[in-house]
Amino acid sequence: MTEKLILDGNRVADWMKEVLVERIGVLSKRGIVPCLATVLVGSNPSSATYVKMKGNACRKLGMRSIRVDLPENTTTSELIEEINKLNEDPNVHGILLQHPVPPHIDERTAFDAIRIEKDVDGVTTLGYAQNAFGIAQFPSCTPAAIMAILAYYDLEVAGKHAVVIGRSPILGKPVSAMLLNSNATVTTCHSRTANLEEIVRLGDIVVAAVGKPNFVKGSWIKQGAIVLDAGYNAGNVGDVDYKSCLLNASAITPVPAGVGPVTIATLLKHTVDAAER
Amino acid sequence: MTEKLILDGNRVADWMKEVLVERIGVLSKRGIVPCLATVLVGSNPSSATYVKMKGNACRKLGMRSIRVDLPENTTTSELIEEINKLNEDPNVHGILLQHPVPPHIDERTAFDAIRIEKDVDGVTTLGYAQNAFGIAQFPSCTPAAIMAILAYYDLEVAGKHAVVIGRSPILGKPVSAMLLNSNATVTTCHSRTANLEEIVRLGDIVVAAVGKPNFVKGSWIKQGAIVLDAGYNAGNVGDVDYKSCLLNASAITPVPAGVGPVTIATLLKHTVDAAER
Repeated sequence: MTEKLILDGNRVADWMKEVLVERIGVLSKRGIVPCLATVLVGSNPSSATYVKMKGNACRKLGMRSIRVDLPENTTTSELIEEINKLNEDPNVHGILLQHPVPPHIDERTAFDAIRIEKDVDGVTTLGYAQNAFGIAQFPSCTPAAIMAILAYYDLEVAGKHAVVIGRSPILGKPVSAMLLNSNATVTTCHSRTANLEEIVRLGDIVVAAVGKPNFVKGSWIKQGAIVLDAGYNAGNVGDVDYKSCLLNASAITPVPAGVGPVTIATLLKHTVDAAER
Repeated sequence: MTEKLILDGNRVADWMKEVLVERIGVLSKRGIVPCLATVLVGSNPSSATYVKMKGNACRKLGMRSIRVDLPENTTTSELIEEINKLNEDPNVHGILLQHPVPPHIDERTAFDAIRIEKDVDGVTTLGYAQNAFGIAQFPSCTPAAIMAILAYYDLEVAGKHAVVIGRSPILGKPVSAMLLNSNATVTTCHSRTANLEEIVRLGDIVVAAVGKPNFVKGSWIKQGAIVLDAGYNAGNVGDVDYKSCLLNASAITPVPAGVGPVTIATLLKHTVDAAER
């Protein structure tokens, strides 16, 4: 059996945080404490957990975090008002609106209310295009985390065939764009893809961003492919059927401790970037 | 031999223009004449020809066109000043900055100076993302023309595998996004793609946007594929080797009289759309 590379997200995240601690130290000498504001609308328990994790991660590194919790029945314009307060607050460097918001809210409009200089989660429409053009300050955090893992482990992207399963505006589409900008040939698949297994089998790099537990099966994975699981479903289960995919993959992210911790480290990094400006 | 469908761009463009003539008639009763401003920097002869064609196309339909010709040594800020005048002019409904501008100009910044309501050529960064999210008023004209040809001839896109060769911000990337939003599985290829012929051979729909004459060969085309040639090289030559590609294709755009005239009709349509608002 060939050796498998388990892409350890905690290791990548720890390395990123080490660098951040130094930068946060330099900032503190200038009297600046990087501050992330998280906005949570409603009481979705997973969303509440994510927001809490992000706040804790900030504090652990010596950063500030502000938490804005809004009731389920908040209107789009009330939400935008709250975002605008954070836009105006010079002590807030990054703003994260936890996705998803309740269905009566126009999420796109709310995302776009975040000032681009504070869009550390990379969710604005303008930020999306800047990322697609390779000129974004803050690309979406999960796509950026995937690229960071590939870079950390020195895995070649240029000239490879990357297959992305999923086309959401904050995950499938931007990670496709980033892989393309890193000179991969990129195929984006989705629920309407006719022969998904066959297409996934073409991938030298496979990114699962479907939101369905254990969706990608080992038999879909080409021998030697790199598998990145951006899924995070109930019960700490990824989009990739890890056990079976491990057989053919040369490198693979587990869930948990794969893409997740690097996503949070990326969010912190973007907030520190914003504070340094 | 199976029958070949030659995708006649003139026919699609004529049909689009018929609809426009009616809409322009309605506008004229309100005292509005749709007006496209074209901005040309320098004296590239092909660019001058394109700008002239676009102006003529406007006049033929009873639209106005304004032509701003600037010297080769125009600076980025001088160009932006001119664009701002057109942004402010209520009689100008659409602004087209002819690509490419001289290399000393920051084209991206100049494109982004165009107010989004007047970006009828679909070149702004924000417009790019809106297109990728399927919410653009004015997608880039050539990608929109390709989609219009597919729609006119009732060619199914959903569930098909589309292979796009090229990744420019105004052609390869936005046409990939539009095909994806129409539920195709989309592979984007480029100069760094390792096994291009093999990948192109997967395509049920092949879009050539390379800028190299006769680049795509017949042996690369899967039997029955639809071939769309967005290239337009010196001497009226496309990116597709038409003669050899015709053998395997079920449908194909010629050059000239393929994507080109539909691109111009799309530009006119967008200008009329803008005038109606």
